Amino acid sequence: MSNSEIDHLIQLLSKLPGLGPRSARRATLYLIGRRESLLAPLSKAMALAAENVKICRTCGNLDTVDPCAICSNPKRDQSIICVVEDIADLWALERSDAFRGRYHILGGTLSALDGIGPDELNIEGLVSRVREPQITEVILALNATVDGQTTSHYISDRLDASDVKISRLAHGVPVGGELDYLDDGTLSAALKSRRSLRGD
Amino acid sequence: MSNSEIDHLIQLLSKLPGLGPRSARRATLYLIGRRESLLAPLSKAMALAAENVKICRTCGNLDTVDPCAICSNPKRDQSIICVVEDIADLWALERSDAFRGRYHILGGTLSALDGIGPDELNIEGLVSRVREPQITEVILALNATVDGQTTSHYISDRLDASDVKISRLAHGVPVGGELDYLDDGTLSAALKSRRSLRGD
Ligand SMILES: [Zn+2]
Ligand SMILES: [Zn+2]
Repeated sequence: MSNSEIDHLIQLLSKLPGLGPRSARRATLYLIGRRESLLAPLSKAMALAAENVKICRTCGNLDTVDPCAICSNPKRDQSIICVVEDIADLWALERSDAFRGRYHILGGTLSALDGIGPDELNIEGLVSRVREPQITEVILALNATVDGQTTSHYISDRLDASDVKISRLAHGVPVGGELDYLDDGTLSAALKSRRSLRGD
Repeated sequence: MSNSEIDHLIQLLSKLPGLGPRSARRATLYLIGRRESLLAPLSKAMALAAENVKICRTCGNLDTVDPCAICSNPKRDQSIICVVEDIADLWALERSDAFRGRYHILGGTLSALDGIGPDELNIEGLVSRVREPQITEVILALNATVDGQTTSHYISDRLDASDVKISRLAHGVPVGGELDYLDDGTLSAALKSRRSLRGD
Protein backbone atom coordinates (compact mmCIF):
# COMPACT_ATOMS: atom_id res chain seq x y z
CA MET A 1 0.00 0.00 0.00
CA SER A 2 1.02 3.54 -0.65
CA ASN A 3 1.31 5.23 2.70
CA SER A 4 1.06 4.28 6.33
CA GLU A 5 -1.24 7.17 7.30
CA ILE A 6 -3.69 6.30 4.53
CA ASP A 7 -3.37 2.59 5.32
CA HIS A 8 -4.12 3.26 8.96
CA LEU A 9 -7.28 5.17 8.05
CA ILE A 10 -8.40 2.36 5.73
CA GLN A 11 -7.69 -0.22 8.41
CA LEU A 12 -9.74 1.63 11.05
CA LEU A 13 -12.64 2.27 8.66
CA SER A 14 -12.73 -1.41 7.71
CA LYS A 15 -13.61 -2.22 11.34
CA LEU A 16 -16.98 -0.47 11.04
CA PRO A 17 -19.95 -2.81 10.71
CA GLY A 18 -20.88 -3.24 7.04
CA LEU A 19 -17.54 -1.95 5.69
CA GLY A 20 -15.02 -4.54 4.48
CA PRO A 21 -11.50 -3.73 3.25
CA ARG A 22 -12.71 -2.85 -0.23
CA SER A 23 -15.45 -0.46 0.84
CA ALA A 24 -13.07 1.03 3.42
CA ARG A 25 -10.64 1.85 0.58
CA ARG A 26 -13.47 3.42 -1.45
CA ALA A 27 -14.63 5.38 1.60
CA THR A 28 -11.06 6.61 2.21
CA LEU A 29 -10.69 7.90 -1.35
CA TYR A 30 -14.15 9.44 -1.13
CA LEU A 31 -13.20 11.20 2.12
CA ILE A 32 -9.84 12.47 0.85
CA GLY A 33 -11.61 13.85 -2.20
CA ARG A 34 -13.95 15.78 0.16
CA ARG A 35 -11.38 16.98 2.64
CA GLU A 36 -13.04 20.24 3.71
CA SER A 37 -16.68 19.23 3.29
CA LEU A 38 -16.61 15.76 4.87
CA LEU A 39 -13.23 14.43 6.13
CA ALA A 40 -12.37 17.28 8.50
CA PRO A 41 -15.96 17.71 9.82
CA LEU A 42 -16.29 13.94 10.38
CA SER A 43 -13.00 13.88 12.28
CA LYS A 44 -14.25 16.72 14.49
CA ALA A 45 -17.68 15.14 15.04
CA MET A 46 -15.96 11.92 16.13
CA ALA A 47 -13.63 13.73 18.50
CA LEU A 48 -16.59 15.56 20.07
CA ALA A 49 -18.57 12.34 20.42
CA ALA A 50 -15.58 10.52 21.93
CA GLU A 51 -15.18 13.30 24.45
CA ASN A 52 -18.74 14.26 25.31
CA VAL A 53 -21.15 11.35 24.88
CA LYS A 54 -22.31 9.79 28.14
CA ILE A 55 -24.62 6.92 29.04
CA CYS A 56 -27.72 8.09 30.93
CA ARG A 57 -27.66 6.41 34.35
CA THR A 58 -31.45 6.46 34.45
CA CYS A 59 -32.42 4.86 31.14
CA GLY A 60 -29.20 3.80 29.37
CA ASN A 61 -29.64 6.26 26.47
CA LEU A 62 -26.63 8.07 24.94
CA ASP A 63 -26.45 11.84 25.25
CA THR A 64 -24.02 14.61 26.14
CA VAL A 65 -25.89 15.11 29.43
CA ASP A 66 -26.77 12.68 32.23
CA PRO A 67 -29.69 12.30 32.81
CA CYS A 68 -30.37 12.39 29.08
CA ALA A 69 -32.58 14.99 27.38
CA ILE A 70 -35.49 12.54 27.28
CA CYS A 71 -35.30 11.64 30.98
CA SER A 72 -34.98 15.27 32.05
CA ASN A 73 -37.67 16.65 29.74
CA PRO A 74 -40.63 17.68 31.94
CA LYS A 75 -42.96 17.61 28.92
CA ARG A 76 -42.53 13.86 28.54
CA ASP A 77 -45.00 11.60 30.33
CA GLN A 78 -43.30 10.54 33.56
CA SER A 79 -45.77 7.71 34.17
CA ILE A 80 -44.91 5.40 31.25
CA ILE A 81 -41.64 3.56 30.64
CA CYS A 82 -41.03 1.96 27.26
CA VAL A 83 -38.52 -0.91 27.51
CA VAL A 84 -36.33 -1.42 24.42
CA GLU A 85 -33.50 -3.75 23.57
CA ASP A 86 -31.00 -1.14 22.40
CA ILE A 87 -30.54 2.51 21.50
CA ALA A 88 -31.24 1.95 17.81
CA ASP A 89 -34.74 0.85 18.86
CA LEU A 90 -35.14 3.98 21.00
CA TRP A 91 -34.15 6.06 17.96
CA ALA A 92 -36.63 4.17 15.78
CA LEU A 93 -39.45 4.92 18.25
CA GLU A 94 -38.42 8.57 18.52
CA ARG A 95 -38.50 8.87 14.74
CA SER A 96 -42.03 7.47 14.73
CA ASP A 97 -43.00 10.32 17.11
CA ALA A 98 -45.66 8.01 18.59
CA PHE A 99 -44.36 7.76 22.16
CA ARG A 100 -44.09 10.62 24.65
CA GLY A 101 -43.01 8.76 27.79
CA ARG A 102 -39.54 7.72 28.87
CA TYR A 103 -37.40 4.73 27.94
CA HIS A 104 -35.45 1.94 29.54
CA ILE A 105 -32.69 0.28 27.53
CA LEU A 106 -32.04 -3.34 28.41
CA GLY A 107 -28.82 -3.72 26.43
CA GLY A 108 -29.96 -6.93 24.71
CA THR A 109 -32.37 -9.79 25.24
CA LEU A 110 -32.14 -13.00 27.20
CA SER A 111 -30.50 -15.64 25.03
CA ALA A 112 -29.75 -19.22 26.03
CA LEU A 113 -27.71 -19.61 22.84
CA ASP A 114 -25.49 -16.57 23.49
CA GLY A 115 -25.37 -17.22 27.25
CA ILE A 116 -27.09 -13.93 28.09
CA GLY A 117 -28.93 -14.19 31.39
CA PRO A 118 -30.86 -11.58 33.42
CA ASP A 119 -27.65 -10.34 35.08
CA GLU A 120 -26.23 -9.29 31.71
CA LEU A 121 -29.21 -7.00 31.08
CA ASN A 122 -30.29 -3.81 32.82
CA ILE A 123 -33.33 -5.48 34.44
CA GLU A 124 -32.60 -4.57 38.08
CA GLY A 125 -32.53 -0.91 37.06
CA LEU A 126 -35.97 -1.30 35.52
CA VAL A 127 -37.39 -3.03 38.62
CA SER A 128 -36.10 -0.11 40.74
CA ARG A 129 -37.56 2.52 38.43
CA VAL A 130 -40.96 0.82 38.39
CA ARG A 131 -41.10 1.18 42.19
CA GLU A 132 -41.28 4.98 41.76
CA PRO A 133 -44.86 5.99 42.61
CA GLN A 134 -45.50 8.00 39.42
CA ILE A 135 -45.04 4.96 37.14
CA THR A 136 -48.36 3.53 35.97
CA GLU A 137 -47.41 1.57 32.86
CA VAL A 138 -44.49 -0.35 31.37
CA ILE A 139 -44.55 -0.98 27.61
CA LEU A 140 -42.35 -3.91 26.56
CA ALA A 141 -41.23 -2.85 23.06
CA LEU A 142 -38.93 -5.77 22.37
CA ASN A 143 -38.30 -7.42 19.04
CA ALA A 144 -40.93 -9.96 17.98
CA THR A 145 -38.32 -12.72 18.04
CA VAL A 146 -38.28 -15.78 20.30
CA ASP A 147 -35.62 -14.17 22.53
CA GLY A 148 -37.52 -10.87 22.59
CA GLN A 149 -40.76 -12.58 23.62
CA THR A 150 -38.96 -14.71 26.24
CA THR A 151 -37.48 -11.53 27.67
CA SER A 152 -40.91 -9.84 27.72
CA HIS A 153 -42.35 -12.75 29.71
CA TYR A 154 -39.39 -12.74 32.10
CA ILE A 155 -39.73 -9.00 32.78
CA SER A 156 -43.49 -9.29 33.16
CA ASP A 157 -42.91 -11.98 35.82
CA ARG A 158 -40.27 -9.88 37.57
CA LEU A 159 -42.73 -6.97 37.79
CA ASP A 160 -45.49 -9.20 39.15
CA ALA A 161 -45.28 -7.67 42.63
CA SER A 162 -45.91 -4.16 41.37
CA ASP A 163 -49.37 -3.01 40.34
CA VAL A 164 -48.39 -1.12 37.17
CA LYS A 165 -50.03 -1.95 33.88
CA ILE A 166 -47.75 -3.98 31.61
CA SER A 167 -48.30 -3.99 27.86
CA ARG A 168 -46.47 -5.13 24.80
CA LEU A 169 -46.53 -3.69 21.28
CA ALA A 170 -49.51 -4.82 19.22
CA HIS A 171 -48.99 -7.39 16.57
CA GLY A 172 -48.36 -5.31 13.59
CA VAL A 173 -44.67 -5.77 14.20
CA PRO A 174 -44.00 -8.58 11.69
CA VAL A 175 -43.21 -11.85 13.46
CA GLY A 176 -39.46 -12.41 13.41
CA GLY A 177 -38.89 -8.77 12.43
CA GLU A 178 -36.78 -6.16 14.18
CA LEU A 179 -38.06 -2.75 15.27
CA ASP A 180 -35.27 -0.79 13.70
CA TYR A 181 -36.30 -1.97 10.20
CA LEU A 182 -39.92 -0.80 10.44
CA ASP A 183 -41.45 2.29 8.91
CA ASP A 184 -42.84 4.98 11.23
CA GLY A 185 -46.48 4.20 10.36
CA THR A 186 -46.18 0.54 11.37
CA LEU A 187 -44.47 1.53 14.61
CA SER A 188 -47.19 4.10 15.38
CA ALA A 189 -49.96 1.57 14.71
CA ALA A 190 -48.28 -1.07 16.87
CA LEU A 191 -47.91 1.41 19.73
CA LYS A 192 -51.52 2.63 19.53
CA SER A 193 -53.02 -0.86 19.64
CA ARG A 194 -50.60 -2.22 22.22
CA ARG A 195 -52.13 -5.17 24.05
CA SER A 196 -52.34 -5.42 27.82
CA LEU A 197 -50.58 -8.40 29.35
CA ARG A 198 -52.04 -7.66 32.76
CA GLY A 199 -53.99 -5.06 34.69
CA ASP A 200 -56.44 -4.09 31.93
CA MET B 1 -33.40 12.01 17.60
CA SER B 2 -31.63 12.05 20.90
CA ASN B 3 -28.84 14.56 20.58
CA SER B 4 -27.52 17.01 18.04
CA GLU B 5 -23.87 15.89 18.39
CA ILE B 6 -24.78 12.26 17.84
CA ASP B 7 -27.18 13.22 15.03
CA HIS B 8 -24.44 15.22 13.33
CA LEU B 9 -22.07 12.24 13.45
CA ILE B 10 -24.77 9.94 12.02
CA GLN B 11 -25.54 12.46 9.30
CA LEU B 12 -21.88 12.76 8.23
CA LEU B 13 -21.31 8.99 8.32
CA SER B 14 -24.39 8.44 6.15
CA LYS B 15 -22.66 10.40 3.37
CA LEU B 16 -20.00 7.70 2.97
CA PRO B 17 -20.45 5.46 -0.08
CA GLY B 18 -22.23 2.26 0.92
CA LEU B 19 -23.60 3.64 4.22
CA GLY B 20 -27.25 4.72 4.32
CA PRO B 21 -28.97 6.32 7.34
CA ARG B 22 -29.61 2.97 9.03
CA SER B 23 -26.06 1.64 8.72
CA ALA B 24 -24.74 5.08 9.76
CA ARG B 25 -26.78 4.80 12.97
CA ARG B 26 -25.43 1.29 13.61
CA ALA B 27 -21.87 2.48 12.90
CA THR B 28 -22.33 5.39 15.32
CA LEU B 29 -23.47 3.10 18.14
CA TYR B 30 -20.62 0.72 17.31
CA LEU B 31 -18.11 3.60 17.46
CA ILE B 32 -19.43 5.04 20.72
CA GLY B 33 -19.21 1.55 22.24
CA ARG B 34 -15.52 1.47 21.21
CA ARG B 35 -14.58 4.98 22.20
CA GLU B 36 -10.92 4.40 23.09
CA SER B 37 -10.14 1.55 20.69
CA LEU B 38 -11.85 2.88 17.55
CA LEU B 39 -13.70 6.21 17.76
CA ALA B 40 -10.83 8.37 19.06
CA PRO B 41 -8.15 6.70 16.84
CA LEU B 42 -10.40 7.06 13.76
CA SER B 43 -10.97 10.73 14.52
CA LYS B 44 -7.20 11.25 14.80
CA ALA B 45 -6.45 9.28 11.62
CA MET B 46 -8.97 11.42 9.73
CA ALA B 47 -7.53 14.65 11.08
CA LEU B 48 -4.02 13.54 10.05
CA ALA B 49 -5.22 12.54 6.58
CA ALA B 50 -7.11 15.83 6.15
CA GLU B 51 -3.98 17.74 7.09
CA ASN B 52 -1.20 15.76 5.48
CA VAL B 53 -2.35 13.89 2.39
CA LYS B 54 -1.17 15.41 -0.89
CA ILE B 55 -1.66 14.55 -4.55
CA CYS B 56 1.61 13.58 -6.26
CA ARG B 57 2.20 16.09 -9.06
CA THR B 58 4.06 13.45 -11.06
CA CYS B 59 1.62 10.52 -11.09
CA GLY B 60 -1.55 11.65 -9.29
CA ASN B 61 -1.14 9.19 -6.39
CA LEU B 62 -2.06 10.18 -2.82
CA ASP B 63 0.70 10.35 -0.22
CA THR B 64 2.00 12.57 2.56
CA VAL B 65 4.94 13.51 0.36
CA ASP B 66 5.12 14.93 -3.17
CA PRO B 67 6.52 13.30 -5.25
CA CYS B 68 4.93 10.17 -3.74
CA ALA B 69 6.91 7.28 -2.23
CA ILE B 70 6.48 5.26 -5.43
CA CYS B 71 7.69 8.02 -7.78
CA SER B 72 10.70 8.81 -5.56
CA ASN B 73 11.70 5.19 -4.85
CA PRO B 74 14.99 4.56 -6.74
CA LYS B 75 14.42 0.80 -6.54
CA ARG B 76 11.36 1.02 -8.76
CA ASP B 77 11.81 0.60 -12.48
CA GLN B 78 12.01 4.14 -13.94
CA SER B 79 11.44 2.94 -17.49
CA ILE B 80 7.87 1.63 -17.25
CA ILE B 81 4.72 3.63 -16.56
CA CYS B 82 1.51 1.81 -15.71
CA VAL B 83 -1.56 3.91 -16.54
CA VAL B 84 -4.57 3.36 -14.28
CA GLU B 85 -8.00 4.91 -14.03
CA ASP B 86 -7.91 5.75 -10.32
CA ILE B 87 -6.01 5.26 -7.06
CA ALA B 88 -8.04 2.22 -6.04
CA ASP B 89 -6.62 0.50 -9.15
CA LEU B 90 -3.08 1.55 -8.20
CA TRP B 91 -3.67 0.05 -4.74
CA ALA B 92 -5.01 -3.17 -6.31
CA LEU B 93 -1.86 -3.50 -8.45
CA GLU B 94 0.40 -2.74 -5.47
CA ARG B 95 -1.35 -5.45 -3.46
CA SER B 96 -0.71 -7.93 -6.27
CA ASP B 97 3.02 -7.10 -5.95
CA ALA B 98 3.39 -7.85 -9.65
CA PHE B 99 4.49 -4.43 -10.89
CA ARG B 100 7.71 -2.66 -9.96
CA GLY B 101 7.57 0.39 -12.22
CA ARG B 102 5.76 3.68 -11.67
CA TYR B 103 2.15 4.73 -12.21
CA HIS B 104 0.10 7.38 -13.93
CA ILE B 105 -3.42 8.04 -12.68
CA LEU B 106 -5.83 9.31 -15.31
CA GLY B 107 -8.63 10.25 -12.95
CA GLY B 108 -11.27 8.39 -14.96
CA THR B 109 -11.95 7.18 -18.47
CA LEU B 110 -13.29 8.88 -21.55
CA SER B 111 -17.08 8.65 -21.52
CA ALA B 112 -19.43 10.08 -24.10
CA LEU B 113 -22.34 9.35 -21.77
CA ASP B 114 -20.88 11.23 -18.80
CA GLY B 115 -19.42 13.97 -21.01
CA ILE B 116 -15.83 13.15 -20.01
CA GLY B 117 -13.41 14.14 -22.76
CA PRO B 118 -9.58 14.05 -22.89
CA ASP B 119 -9.31 17.45 -21.15
CA GLU B 120 -11.02 16.06 -18.04
CA LEU B 121 -8.33 13.37 -17.70
CA ASN B 122 -4.63 13.65 -16.87
CA ILE B 123 -3.57 12.68 -20.40
CA GLU B 124 -1.33 15.70 -21.16
CA GLY B 125 0.72 14.86 -18.06
CA LEU B 126 1.21 11.33 -19.38
CA VAL B 127 2.30 12.57 -22.84
CA SER B 128 4.91 14.82 -21.14
CA ARG B 129 6.20 12.03 -18.93
CA VAL B 130 6.55 9.65 -21.87
CA ARG B 131 8.90 12.20 -23.52
CA GLU B 132 11.45 11.58 -20.74
CA PRO B 133 14.30 9.56 -22.30
CA GLN B 134 14.31 6.76 -19.69
CA ILE B 135 10.74 5.68 -20.50
CA THR B 136 10.64 2.55 -22.67
CA GLU B 137 7.16 1.16 -22.02
CA VAL B 138 3.65 2.29 -21.14
CA ILE B 139 1.23 -0.32 -19.79
CA LEU B 140 -2.41 0.66 -20.17
CA ALA B 141 -4.02 -1.04 -17.16
CA LEU B 142 -7.54 0.27 -17.67
CA ASN B 143 -10.77 -1.49 -16.87
CA ALA B 144 -11.93 -3.99 -19.52
CA THR B 145 -15.06 -1.92 -20.10
CA VAL B 146 -16.05 -0.19 -23.35
CA ASP B 147 -14.96 3.19 -21.92
CA GLY B 148 -11.70 1.71 -20.63
CA GLN B 149 -10.86 0.20 -24.00
CA THR B 150 -11.84 3.41 -25.83
CA THR B 151 -9.51 5.31 -23.51
CA SER B 152 -6.69 2.79 -24.15
CA HIS B 153 -7.03 3.30 -27.90
CA TYR B 154 -7.15 7.08 -27.53
CA ILE B 155 -3.97 7.12 -25.40
CA SER B 156 -2.22 4.70 -27.73
CA ASP B 157 -3.00 7.10 -30.62
CA ARG B 158 -1.81 10.12 -28.60
CA LEU B 159 1.53 8.36 -27.96
CA ASP B 160 1.92 7.46 -31.62
CA ALA B 161 4.76 9.96 -32.10
CA SER B 162 6.91 8.42 -29.39
CA ASP B 163 8.79 5.20 -29.88
CA VAL B 164 7.97 3.59 -26.53
CA LYS B 165 6.40 0.16 -26.35
CA ILE B 166 2.69 0.30 -25.50
CA SER B 167 0.97 -2.69 -23.96
CA ARG B 168 -2.31 -3.46 -22.31
CA LEU B 169 -3.13 -6.03 -19.63
CA ALA B 170 -3.62 -9.54 -20.97
CA HIS B 171 -7.08 -10.90 -21.22
CA GLY B 172 -7.50 -12.57 -17.96
CA VAL B 173 -9.23 -9.48 -16.73
CA PRO B 174 -12.87 -10.61 -17.12
CA VAL B 175 -14.63 -8.67 -19.87
CA GLY B 176 -16.80 -5.99 -18.26
CA GLY B 177 -14.94 -6.44 -14.99
CA GLU B 178 -13.17 -3.84 -12.90
CA LEU B 179 -9.56 -4.16 -11.68
CA ASP B 180 -10.28 -3.37 -8.10
CA TYR B 181 -12.51 -6.46 -7.78
CA LEU B 182 -9.87 -8.96 -8.94
CA ASP B 183 -7.79 -11.27 -6.80
CA ASP B 184 -4.01 -10.77 -6.77
CA GLY B 185 -3.33 -13.94 -8.79
CA THR B 186 -5.51 -12.86 -11.67
CA LEU B 187 -3.89 -9.43 -11.69
CA SER B 188 -0.40 -10.99 -11.66
CA ALA B 189 -1.25 -13.30 -14.54
CA ALA B 190 -2.78 -10.49 -16.57
CA LEU B 191 0.32 -8.35 -16.02
CA LYS B 192 2.77 -11.13 -16.94
CA SER B 193 1.03 -11.96 -20.22
CA ARG B 194 0.29 -8.37 -21.17
CA ARG B 195 -0.13 -8.05 -24.92
CA SER B 196 1.78 -5.55 -27.03
CA LEU B 197 -0.37 -3.10 -28.97
CA ARG B 198 2.67 -1.81 -30.88
CA GLY B 199 6.47 -2.04 -30.97
CA ASP B 200 6.77 -5.76 -30.19
ZN1 LIG C 1 -32.22 8.82 30.10
ZN1 LIG D 1 3.80 9.74 -7.70
